[in-house]
Amino acid sequence: MDSFNYSMLCDYYELTMSNGYFRCGMSDKISYFDMFFRKIPDNGGFAIFCGLSQVIDYIKNLHFSKEDIDFLRSKKTFSEDFLEYLSDFKFTGDIYAVKEGTVVFPNEPLITVRAPAIEAQLIETFLLLVINHQSLIATKANRIVRASNGRAVSEFGSRRAHGADAAIYGARAAGIGGCAATACTIVDQKFGFPATGTMAHSWVQMFDDEYEAFAAYCKCYPENATLLVDTYNVLESGIPNAIRAFNSILKPLGCRPVGVRIDSGDITYLSKEARRMLDEAGYSDCKIIASNSLDEYIIRDMIYQGARVDSFGVGERLITSTSSPVFGGVYKLCAVEENGRIVPKIKISENVAKVTTPHYKKFYRIYDRETGKAIADQICVFDEEINEERDLVLFDPDYTWKKKTVRNFTAKLMQAPIFKNGELVYDEPSYEEICDYCKAQVDTLWDEFKRFENPHTYYVDLSKKLWSIKNQLLAEKL
Amino acid sequence: MDSFNYSMLCDYYELTMSNGYFRCGMSDKISYFDMFFRKIPDNGGFAIFCGLSQVIDYIKNLHFSKEDIDFLRSKKTFSEDFLEYLSDFKFTGDIYAVKEGTVVFPNEPLITVRAPAIEAQLIETFLLLVINHQSLIATKANRIVRASNGRAVSEFGSRRAHGADAAIYGARAAGIGGCAATACTIVDQKFGFPATGTMAHSWVQMFDDEYEAFAAYCKCYPENATLLVDTYNVLESGIPNAIRAFNSILKPLGCRPVGVRIDSGDITYLSKEARRMLDEAGYSDCKIIASNSLDEYIIRDMIYQGARVDSFGVGERLITSTSSPVFGGVYKLCAVEENGRIVPKIKISENVAKVTTPHYKKFYRIYDRETGKAIADQICVFDEEINEERDLVLFDPDYTWKKKTVRNFTAKLMQAPIFKNGELVYDEPSYEEICDYCKAQVDTLWDEFKRFENPHTYYVDLSKKLWSIKNQLLAEKL
Repeated sequence: MDSFNYSMLCDYYELTMSNGYFRCGMSDKISYFDMFFRKIPDNGGFAIFCGLSQVIDYIKNLHFSKEDIDFLRSKKTFSEDFLEYLSDFKFTGDIYAVKEGTVVFPNEPLITVRAPAIEAQLIETFLLLVINHQSLIATKANRIVRASNGRAVSEFGSRRAHGADAAIYGARAAGIGGCAATACTIVDQKFGFPATGTMAHSWVQMFDDEYEAFAAYCKCYPENATLLVDTYNVLESGIPNAIRAFNSILKPLGCRPVGVRIDSGDITYLSKEARRMLDEAGYSDCKIIASNSLDEYIIRDMIYQGARVDSFGVGERLITSTSSPVFGGVYKLCAVEENGRIVPKIKISENVAKVTTPHYKKFYRIYDRETGKAIADQICVFDEEINEERDLVLFDPDYTWKKKTVRNFTAKLMQAPIFKNGELVYDEPSYEEICDYCKAQVDTLWDEFKRFENPHTYYVDLSKKLWSIKNQLLAEKL
Repeated sequence: MDSFNYSMLCDYYELTMSNGYFRCGMSDKISYFDMFFRKIPDNGGFAIFCGLSQVIDYIKNLHFSKEDIDFLRSKKTFSEDFLEYLSDFKFTGDIYAVKEGTVVFPNEPLITVRAPAIEAQLIETFLLLVINHQSLIATKANRIVRASNGRAVSEFGSRRAHGADAAIYGARAAGIGGCAATACTIVDQKFGFPATGTMAHSWVQMFDDEYEAFAAYCKCYPENATLLVDTYNVLESGIPNAIRAFNSILKPLGCRPVGVRIDSGDITYLSKEARRMLDEAGYSDCKIIASNSLDEYIIRDMIYQGARVDSFGVGERLITSTSSPVFGGVYKLCAVEENGRIVPKIKISENVAKVTTPHYKKFYRIYDRETGKAIADQICVFDEEINEERDLVLFDPDYTWKKKTVRNFTAKLMQAPIFKNGELVYDEPSYEEICDYCKAQVDTLWDEFKRFENPHTYYVDLSKKLWSIKNQLLAEKL
């Protein structure tokens, strides 16, 4: 994706609207858009923001080729003036965003775009699809990693991903969310997220019998032998044949086995029996790896029931976030400039949840100075500052009588400038730095927000000034 | 994707196994793999096979670049001989597959690969991910199109797709499944699947009031005006302002409006009221388009309750197949050649559903000669023929006493040769031909298989010869 031009990966209405703005003389009207989401997948307590690097690549490459312009001309919908405008198109605006790996909550402006109307409009589709996809997978991966309670989780999902990008960037996001490895080779090559893997059932079947297959593998990889033990029968054939191969091939070479993998059956039961058999054979250092349609709920249950699993390979339910496969990020106009003045804009809706928060905004995260834990977030108008030396009164934007006074806190501005006047001004962190940052971010949360069932709802409040502007606009429009 | 080399988009174990086959002198061992799936998404009555064109592109481009080889060398796992072998790698085998758009059922060999072991092994990941993704979306799209009962369905999902490929190839698959249009521009450019679109809420918000926004749009597109009427209030503001713009802008130009779109609220109720208001204003030809988290269940309910909707825009729940986001296609070794003889291979499992059907196979679809409807499929050993002139006795492979004798039928071989000795031998249909073929395929099914709840289970039986081979292998291995 790094250098591919995805400018045409936009909803067609971005182009019909842009042609309209152009015709109405509004091309250069400075507009402010927020990207935010409304609901945390899986009813979780928080989400993880992910995908910014790919948005940066996209913005840098944004342009329309001659073929693109010719195609658009063939639709007989766009004026020649507009097509000429597009042929010189590039992004000249400002973009602010939270860092990749940040813990985020509903209704916060994760990305804010300030740009001429057409530029701000045209980037909507791609920006949303990248952030929605990678944030979904990073959030899910973090749930699965949390459930695994210190055991390593490997991302195994390429074959069930929704296309090539879903495999590649889904694995990238899974690593940011806390997975220790991926099964996908190209992800290692591109991002340095380590790819691992040993054998499929086909390896075992390719030989005349299971022992022969195991022995051949141990000969090839005496220092890295993990054997898949469920092609025929885990306890009656797989584990005994694995032990036999360890004894006959590895032992004479002075090598220890790495592991066995169980990919079907009642893994909790099988892992306990396999553990006992391996221990009795003198292989208590041989790890047991489990795979087969796992997710955070099944892993939690397996551990709760005492499964002897050392690490998990998680495929389809991670790479598609099966139990909650949509991250519903949206991109909404929140203000325009008129004669140099910022005019806040609102969208009302029959669905209360779809009413937007107007204006050019920023947001702070309030941390307890003693524990370092996050207390609440406050969304403000762009020109407001939070004074850390004074008490801060937070209030619920819906139930305004619910108040909380915060003392002894630090207030961290959550968005960073990414593009200014179309120039990249952000010092991009490495993949490893993003992964580390995400881990540190999750550590700032109390356990109450990390539950799978009934997590606490984190406070995301509006400043008094912003609340007043929103309610005034609501009163005007209704 | 057309020309990008995705050779490194493979699970790392394909490479460790391949290095192992190479070392064991098994590189050239002719192997047979089947791609099949086990369960129809959404508990439906059938699935639609999709993605073959992208598999063909992939196979044609398959090779390892110098950078790929260098990366693999850095893993310190592969022998230099093997890396040299990979640097000259290309696919030289045979591939058979059902045509794109074919109605398919569990356990049928949708793709059969006959190739030297390493070649057959290395293509597993990519082949699965493409077919799984596109078959999932085509199958889901067909459900939504069926629910819409003749009303057009547009694919609106790019922004919620799992990455760029999921948007592009998901839309491609949605068109094959029966959608009439997409919102995604690049899909039109690449495949000729028409992109449509008019305005987002931002267009309405960008102006000082809703009427002004509608009037401006009607002036820009007098012959193609579809107005989004739910930015503030559908019935109190959106529809009245739309009618006012139609009257003041379109009428003097002699133009008729195309439609209004409702994107929130109780669309069933709102559509009835909107219909009444438009009719009364003399715009009974103005279509009503509905969007907002729709799927086949909601659409069926809306129509059942008399919603006055003329067409549907379906986003996230189509492009992610939200209610069933995994198409579980697998790729399993079914035979190898030894001294020119084909030796069938089986994989047994504690999970009965994971036991494979061994041998090099093909399958027939049996059609009733009078109605043209499909009766059953029969999977056979590769060298079996079905004689249409004789009665055909089908039996359930699990409950063998369940038998059915078929007379007056035609038997159609379902797989076509795609590659022979690495050469493409398939005359690829155009995108439009695939869409038409899919429609014709669905028409060969009785309504009993098209239900959303409790569809009939289509018969997929084994020939007597194949059944015997499978049960003999099962007896040997257990």
